[in-house]
Amino acid sequence: MANELLAHTDMCRDDVEAAAEWLRDRVVDTPVVRSTTLDRIAGTRLWLKAENLQTGGSYKFRGALRAVSQVARRGGHRGVIAQSTGNHALAVAIAAERYGLSATAVLPIDAPVTKVDSIKGSGARVELAGTTVRRRLEVVDRLRAASGDAVLDAYDHPGVIAGQGSATWDLVEEVERRGASLDAVVVPVGGGGGVAGACLALQGQETAVYGVEPVGCDSMTRSLAAGRRIAVSPAPTLADGLRPSLVGRLPFGIVQDRIAGVVPVDDDDIGRAVCLALFHAKLLLEPSGAAGLAGALRLAARGSFTDIGVVLTGGNAEAVLIARLVAGYGATARTGSGRKGART
Amino acid sequence: MANELLAHTDMCRDDVEAAAEWLRDRVVDTPVVRSTTLDRIAGTRLWLKAENLQTGGSYKFRGALRAVSQVARRGGHRGVIAQSTGNHALAVAIAAERYGLSATAVLPIDAPVTKVDSIKGSGARVELAGTTVRRRLEVVDRLRAASGDAVLDAYDHPGVIAGQGSATWDLVEEVERRGASLDAVVVPVGGGGGVAGACLALQGQETAVYGVEPVGCDSMTRSLAAGRRIAVSPAPTLADGLRPSLVGRLPFGIVQDRIAGVVPVDDDDIGRAVCLALFHAKLLLEPSGAAGLAGALRLAARGSFTDIGVVLTGGNAEAVLIARLVAGYGATARTGSGRKGART
Repeated sequence: MANELLAHTDMCRDDVEAAAEWLRDRVVDTPVVRSTTLDRIAGTRLWLKAENLQTGGSYKFRGALRAVSQVARRGGHRGVIAQSTGNHALAVAIAAERYGLSATAVLPIDAPVTKVDSIKGSGARVELAGTTVRRRLEVVDRLRAASGDAVLDAYDHPGVIAGQGSATWDLVEEVERRGASLDAVVVPVGGGGGVAGACLALQGQETAVYGVEPVGCDSMTRSLAAGRRIAVSPAPTLADGLRPSLVGRLPFGIVQDRIAGVVPVDDDDIGRAVCLALFHAKLLLEPSGAAGLAGALRLAARGSFTDIGVVLTGGNAEAVLIARLVAGYGATARTGSGRKGART
Repeated sequence: MANELLAHTDMCRDDVEAAAEWLRDRVVDTPVVRSTTLDRIAGTRLWLKAENLQTGGSYKFRGALRAVSQVARRGGHRGVIAQSTGNHALAVAIAAERYGLSATAVLPIDAPVTKVDSIKGSGARVELAGTTVRRRLEVVDRLRAASGDAVLDAYDHPGVIAGQGSATWDLVEEVERRGASLDAVVVPVGGGGGVAGACLALQGQETAVYGVEPVGCDSMTRSLAAGRRIAVSPAPTLADGLRPSLVGRLPFGIVQDRIAGVVPVDDDDIGRAVCLALFHAKLLLEPSGAAGLAGALRLAARGSFTDIGVVLTGGNAEAVLIARLVAGYGATARTGSGRKGART
């Protein structure tokens, strides 16, 4: 396994271009959304790639479709297995359905009800297993041994990385089509697949790639500082999708010499970003999907950028959480500070 | 004035095509969003034209830009005046800024703070005047007499109707590009400009056009039944943008022989549509902007359609209202009925 992964660290820009080309008519051509109000708040131009409108509600579908298609093309498997806290498993389930493969999703027992329901709705089998990645991986191993199904990792997979990178590829292409160019692209970091794909997409370009991690879920930040992968005990965060304790081996190898930096964001930043995206870009994001915007706002405050691209990675938010965040934002909007917030 | 309007009742499909052509690179090419979950709920395929992502947050920008450009081209005016409860005035303000014209918005004294702030943010002057259209029109007349500015009506205006119709035009074109065709297009009715534009866009086509009116704000329904325009005393409704007491003369003349019907929706329908669009299409809609989806769901329940297009007309929603609607929806989502609602 380690050798196979090492062999893939020679992934390059062409892999993302090929993925973007292949995915073009197979995934939703999500819009790049602008908001003059958000630009005013940021003090820079923001180009928001609305992957919350992607099939399955997140950009994970890009990598999942690419990876599942490779399994289908190779043959030898009747099904695929994915473990995740939600979006990757949902994306794999939908992709497997397209290719006539069975899908099994291994989820934590506390997975959000709506995600579990959505995955079942795509025809996948759902296994609930403990609350840790280790426990889920044990179940994955048992299922693979019994079924012979292919296991699709959520980030340590070349097809997944190239697929996720196609979101950045398409974003950059669309911005150029509109006559602008990006100083930076911002992508949230969980296991690091998306940001690795972004680094490949922009290899050799002048656009800097920044990751975003919730405070206390900073495996990438620590790993970059140490020069090797460092595991953390993830702190509680609104961004449930960005909580892997350890970034992937393959993503880390890709980003190590290419990433410009990682921006930390806290729950206040993330909650505010969810509400700003909602009321100004008119897009529903889940906290993990808004982390990129939160990071971009922090980055913009440094004052050295004029055009920042952001991958809004997903929108599978729970109603109860959104009600709480918006109620807080709405209450502020009736006070003085909110008036300012609503206008600027 | 009456003669000028009568002269325009010979508007036809070409006017909408010309507007769509002219607007193509001047407005946001908003996406047509699909959701398998919403399709399952509707029991039909829904094609959602996301005009909440339009400049100014509503499709009103199409008509406003077309109308303002005509004023600028004709010359003789240094500014424009618009009275509305919100979106039309905001759209005119943004459009006027593009053409270097001054803009004055005449709004009711109880206009939503965020809309007032947005309009001021576009550089327009805001006059707050009473709570009735009559009072606002008095102020408009006074301002016009003093300034010589051009008054842009929100619906009784050929440029506005053709511009609003371009949303339907673009929707139909995109659906065809994806290899499907629409049985029906659904557009909310306030003064009737949007639905009149839709009727023109689909003149001579097999696609039926339906309007949607909140219960008790049914001037179009009553006018169609009577064969002449009938004013109503608008009942309270969540859909504040659909409360004109009387449909426009020009829109009524256009839709009278072309519209397939008008679907009534109540506040429960509208509130549910806001939440369904939010959690399944990932789009923020204001109640008036969700009325089309509410109507489409009612229409779909009749069982005689396979593909319904909906113009999601706007997304300038108040945080306090969204918090309330989503809290109710989230509470339901934790009970049995909500589980079903979330999954299907």
